[in-house]
Order: sequence, then structure tokens, then C-alpha cells
Amino acid sequence: MQTREEALALDAADPLAPLRAQFTVPDDVIYLDGNSLGVLPSATPARVQQVVAEEWGQGLIRSWNSAGWITLAQRVGDKIARLVGAGPGELVAADSTSVNLFKVLSAALKIAKADAPARRVIVSERSNFPTDLYIAESLAAQHGCRLELIDDAEAIGARLRDDVAVLMLTHVNYRTGRMHDMAALTAAAHSAGVLTIWDLAHSAGAVVVDLQGSNADFAVGCGYKYLNGGPGAPAFVWAHPRHADRFWQPLSGWMGHAAPFEFTPDYRPAPGIARYLCGTPSVVAMAALECGVDTVLAAEPMGGMAALRAKSLALTRTFAALAEARCADHGLTRVSPDDDALRGSQVCLSHPETAYPVVQALIARGVIGDFRAPDILRFGFTPLYTRFVDVWDAVEHLMQVLEHGEWREARFNQKAAVT
Amino acid sequence: MQTREEALALDAADPLAPLRAQFTVPDDVIYLDGNSLGVLPSATPARVQQVVAEEWGQGLIRSWNSAGWITLAQRVGDKIARLVGAGPGELVAADSTSVNLFKVLSAALKIAKADAPARRVIVSERSNFPTDLYIAESLAAQHGCRLELIDDAEAIGARLRDDVAVLMLTHVNYRTGRMHDMAALTAAAHSAGVLTIWDLAHSAGAVVVDLQGSNADFAVGCGYKYLNGGPGAPAFVWAHPRHADRFWQPLSGWMGHAAPFEFTPDYRPAPGIARYLCGTPSVVAMAALECGVDTVLAAEPMGGMAALRAKSLALTRTFAALAEARCADHGLTRVSPDDDALRGSQVCLSHPETAYPVVQALIARGVIGDFRAPDILRFGFTPLYTRFVDVWDAVEHLMQVLEHGEWREARFNQKAAVT
Repeated sequence: MQTREEALALDAADPLAPLRAQFTVPDDVIYLDGNSLGVLPSATPARVQQVVAEEWGQGLIRSWNSAGWITLAQRVGDKIARLVGAGPGELVAADSTSVNLFKVLSAALKIAKADAPARRVIVSERSNFPTDLYIAESLAAQHGCRLELIDDAEAIGARLRDDVAVLMLTHVNYRTGRMHDMAALTAAAHSAGVLTIWDLAHSAGAVVVDLQGSNADFAVGCGYKYLNGGPGAPAFVWAHPRHADRFWQPLSGWMGHAAPFEFTPDYRPAPGIARYLCGTPSVVAMAALECGVDTVLAAEPMGGMAALRAKSLALTRTFAALAEARCADHGLTRVSPDDDALRGSQVCLSHPETAYPVVQALIARGVIGDFRAPDILRFGFTPLYTRFVDVWDAVEHLMQVLEHGEWREARFNQKAAVT
Repeated sequence: MQTREEALALDAADPLAPLRAQFTVPDDVIYLDGNSLGVLPSATPARVQQVVAEEWGQGLIRSWNSAGWITLAQRVGDKIARLVGAGPGELVAADSTSVNLFKVLSAALKIAKADAPARRVIVSERSNFPTDLYIAESLAAQHGCRLELIDDAEAIGARLRDDVAVLMLTHVNYRTGRMHDMAALTAAAHSAGVLTIWDLAHSAGAVVVDLQGSNADFAVGCGYKYLNGGPGAPAFVWAHPRHADRFWQPLSGWMGHAAPFEFTPDYRPAPGIARYLCGTPSVVAMAALECGVDTVLAAEPMGGMAALRAKSLALTRTFAALAEARCADHGLTRVSPDDDALRGSQVCLSHPETAYPVVQALIARGVIGDFRAPDILRFGFTPLYTRFVDVWDAVEHLMQVLEHGEWREARFNQKAAVT
């Protein structure tokens, strides 16, 4: 891409372009942070209002049945399943990613203890999103295991030896945008007798994920990034059907009971993934999440996730090339992979000193990306609503910020926000 | 109370009556189920809309700072603290009651293991709300402890011997409305070397709770009952300051980290109650909860929880007496305690055969209480919006349902709803 006109022509020819009309993108914003918080779908305010004013306000307690609240976790889960290669009834929306990771890692460690008690290591990456590591640290201590962190992604395969119980990875790295080959690593893990847990926080709705085809063991993911479910939206959890019924997960709350309304004093887990539910979910948050998931499902007639992925790759490829061509003199280095097969839906640049103020200066201009410590400028590209002209304009702003030294004046008024 | 006019006169003289104007109670409904799902506050729809359309829609990721999302859990927690006798900075809104119970029971068991390793029993009541027992069952297994369930509330004190680590009780029983003496049982527990965990699901916003004055150890509670936070609202968690910093709770997600945005690979728990946070909370759900909590705080100038409690007792006392006087011939038995000091904010009646269809027939008439298996008709009285005339009218409807045998035709179209 050499000119802004070329970008506009690409948008005009883009069969996915109409999907942007599903969203309320502020006029004065180029939003490259959908990997932190997705944009508001236009349908969400009315749906949320309906849940609040009608279903809650008028229906009151009756709405658990009459408005279908009681099966929302499954209904939304079934929709998310279609985006990540899972079957109906295999995935539920629930709790937060951290809480769900606790559930599946607990289950995986119990399975490992039963099937291969000598395996006592959880392998992950040092650059994994911290909450995943914190949860693993907690469970490792509880189960007498050890959490081992790998620095080089290429070295993971070689580490899958017979002391390893679980390989726990985030599919697309939150800082670098590097994507693992889920099928290949899962196959390598299984041939070494290791279970796999995949965090799809930066994958669901952004890249093609095939949980069943990859033969993965467990997965969790986030509702508020590429699924556009709103700030702190419920997360999701999936267990392969071969594992779902094997053990209780420890957060054995009443919503995961086989018959919650029998109010029996003894826990009897529901069959399948429903046992991964715990307490009562926020109905309002769940309804907003459903609206967000629907915006991704709207791409199904146009080729679904494969088509979204193709556009996402074109966006990130173009942004990386333009940034390199136009900002080469300012000391920025590309951190995210060049190879399409290794890149998620984001482009990360680094600068040892100015990353934070440059991001601030861009935000002041309405170009919203984010900073990740210590030196990363992170730009996420949500193919549902990001245009090629946004790519052009964002790089133009970036160039001007750098050329004018505008970042020197950037107000240090924003700490890093929620990833 | 002998006549409807008397009821109207009591309402006219009630200094708390204006608080009802804070709510949107449907015209055709007498709502006696605020102990399951509180009524919609009139302020909530606009506030939720503001969060969705403005803070999320326009502010996007910037709102974590500019709209104060990042400290919502603490802000709402500080408000709830005022209703349950806790200090500022001691309580946070987070997750579900089940998840929060998992956190505090884990912490209590760790403390017991450190201070008194021979203590291996968790004592609770068989009639406790099941999710509490399910979570305790899970943690008992994990910690090599035993969950022992007491059938007779009066026998709890005698069971607090030197093998007991934790006494875990729901302050007001969900089925019977019976309330424990928190201060007395906590004192008995402490003198026996036992830690206490109180579930305030049916207490917060309904009865006077004094966590600090009672010297309790841990507490959790529900946001969607008497706090009017909406279906599945976030719950809350409190740890006495003497315990809060002693151990990690196992759900060590990034929101409980001392510096979440440093993204360090090692968990370092935040000081105080903030370490009881885990993942990213739903901002929309949290904002709705705040509106609900504000409706209770609005009673502060009128005497606060003590005044609300006095009205609640008058409502339940009147309902119980009227039901007994007017429906005595129909085989209903009162299950909730007669003694004010032992009764929460609900009246429970039982009937061995017709409880479920009678509740259905009442709902068909717009009198919403609920059924609790196997034989309980449960009526909750939220003093913020329930009037004496509602008490009169509800009993009138109950009498007619019973006298006309209307329950025989009640459609069996509603399973028990979320408590």
C-alpha cells in the first residue's frame, strides 16, 4: 500500500466491510485496541436495556425461566463454540478467564495424578499473560508440582519430557502477538503423554481455532476482547468430552450441580461441561456478551473465521510494512512475527525509551493502541470493524508523532489498561 | 392488624415509606421475593446505559482510568462495608458468592493448618444453602479435612471441640429464615479455637450485621438479593484485617496482584482485601450493583440498617400473625421462628402437599414468593419497598387461593428459581 487512496480502494472492495456497521465506533477514534476491549456493538445498549428494564424490572424472578436466564451460560457457550471449533454442549460462558483457568488446570492436574503420578511439572512460557502464571503458581503449590517457564517458544517441544503433566499456553501471546501452532504442539504434547491447556484470550474471534481438530484437552478464553462482550464480560471454558466427566473441578458451585434446584446437601456434578459452572452468573453481562458474539457470528455467511482471519492478516501485514517503511528512522523495532502463520491479530513494535509516551501521544490524537511494559507499543486489528484506511491513518499519525517529537509532551496520564 | 385500613395507616405513618420511590415495582405485582432477586432500582437503567453507551461505547479502553472502572470493586465494596459493620478497605465486590466462599474457606483452612494442624473438621449445617456445602465438600477433600453437618442449630455450640478448624454458617437460613446469633457463636467458636465464616446472602441489606463488633473472621455475601444489584450481580468478600494478609487465597488472579500492570511472572499478593480479587470484573454488573447498594444506603439518614430491621420485623411479624389468623384451617405450618431475635427478613410456611401449587397460584395472582423443596412457601420482605398493605393483600390472596382450592388448577410451569 502506497497511498491513502489505495487503502480506500481496499475497503471498497472488502466483502467484510459491511460488518463494521454492527458497531458504534466513535467518530474521532481509530481503535486499535480491540485485543484489550472490543468496541461496543450497536445492538448491545437496547438488549441490555431490555434485560434490565423488562426482564429484570418487570419479569423479576420469573425471568429465570420465562426469559431463559437459567440456560444463558450454555446458549452463549454454544455460540462461542462455533468460533473455536468446539461442538454444541461442549463449552460454557462463565466467570473470568482466571477462574476458568483454575478449574481446567485443577482438572488436568487431577487427571495427570491419576494416570501418570510421576509427572509433576506444569510447563508454560515466561511471557505468558501473568494471570495464567499466577493461577498456575497457586495450583502448582497446592498439588506439589512445579511451574517451569520457558523463555524461547521454539524450545517448548523439546521440554515435553516424561516429568511434565501439563503444557499450559496462551495461543496468541498478549505482548508479542506470536501465535503457537496449536495442532502441532498438542500432538507433540500427547505423544509425550502431556495434557494441553490453551488460553484463547487473544484468539477467539480473531484467528482460526480448531479445538476438536487440534485434539486439545482444555481451553479457556476471554469475552471482552475480540468477542466484543464489554468490559469484564464473562469468559468461557471448554473441556474435551473425553475429559469433561472424569473429575470434579474444585469450584463445585451449585450451578454446576446435576440438579441445582433439588437443593441436596451433597454435590453431584452435572454431566459434561455444565459442571464447570460455579455460582450465579451476571445475566446483564451475559446478555451483553451474547450481543458481542453475535457480531462475530454475523461473518458466517461471508466465510466466517477463515474470512476474518484473511482480512486480519492483510491488516496486520499492511500495518507492519507501512510502519517499517515510513517510521524506519525513529528506532522502532517490530516485535510481532513477520510470518503470517506465527502472527495473531496484532502488531507490536518496541522502543526502549519512548514506547509509553508515543502511545500516549497517539491516544491524544485519537489513535488508541496500548503500551505493554516495559517497551511495547501494541496495536490490535479487529477485522470486524478495522478498515484499511484506519491502517493508513494510524501509521500517518505514528509518523507525525515521531517526526514532531510530539511524544515529549505526551501527558503521562494513563497507566496501562486492562489487557 | 385487623383491617386493610389499618395497613394503609401504618404505611402512612412509616418514615421509611418514601424509600419505595427508589424502585420500579410492577403495578400488578406484590413482590415478596426480594430475598431471591431484589427489585430494579429506578436509577439502574440510566446508569447501566451510561456505562454501556458512554463509558464503554465512547471512552472505550480509556475508561478503565477515566471512568474509574479499575477501582470499582473497592468503591462498591466500601459501600457494602457500611451495611455490614466492616471498615473501609476491608471488603471488595467480586465474583460470585460460591467463588468467594472458596477463597475464604481456603484461607481459613490454611490458617488453621498453620496454627492448629490437628484441627481437621469443617462444621456447618445440613440446611445451609447447598452451594456453600458443595464448595466446602470440595475444599475438605483437597485439604484432607472432613465436612460435618449439624441438623439442629442449637447443637452447634456443643460441637465446637478441639478437632474443629472452621465453623461455616449462613447467618440467615435460606429455607427457614432462622437467624444465628453471630456474636455469640463467633465468641463460642473463638473460645474453642475455631475460625468462623459467615455467609451473609440473606442478611446484607436485610438485618443488622456487625462483622467487626462480632469479631468474625471471614464473610461473603450476595449482591442480587437485598442489595438489589440485579440478576447474578457480583458478590462480596470480607476478611478480618488480622487475617487478610496472612495467606494467599488460591484464586490468585492478576486483579489481586500488588501491581497488576507490572505484568511480572511471579504473583505478589496485594496488601489487604484486594488480594481476594481474581480476574477482571464485569463493569456493567458492578455498576448495577452500586445502584442497588445505594438504595440501601439511602436509609442512612433515617436510621440505616437498624431502622430497616425494625420495619422488616414489623412486616414479618404482621404477615406471620395474619397468615396464622386467616389461613389456620388449611394445614399450613409456620417454619420461620416466632422470636424476633431468631428471624431474618422472611416468613416461611410449609405444607406437605400443596406448597408448590399454592406458590404457583399466588404467582398467577401477581403475589410473587417462592417455593423451596420439598414443602416450603417462602415470602421475603424487603423493608425498602414492601408496604404493610402488601402484607395485608398477600395474605388475602393466600386465603382466597386456599379457600377456593385455586392451587389445584395452578399450572406447573415454573421450577424453583434462583435463591
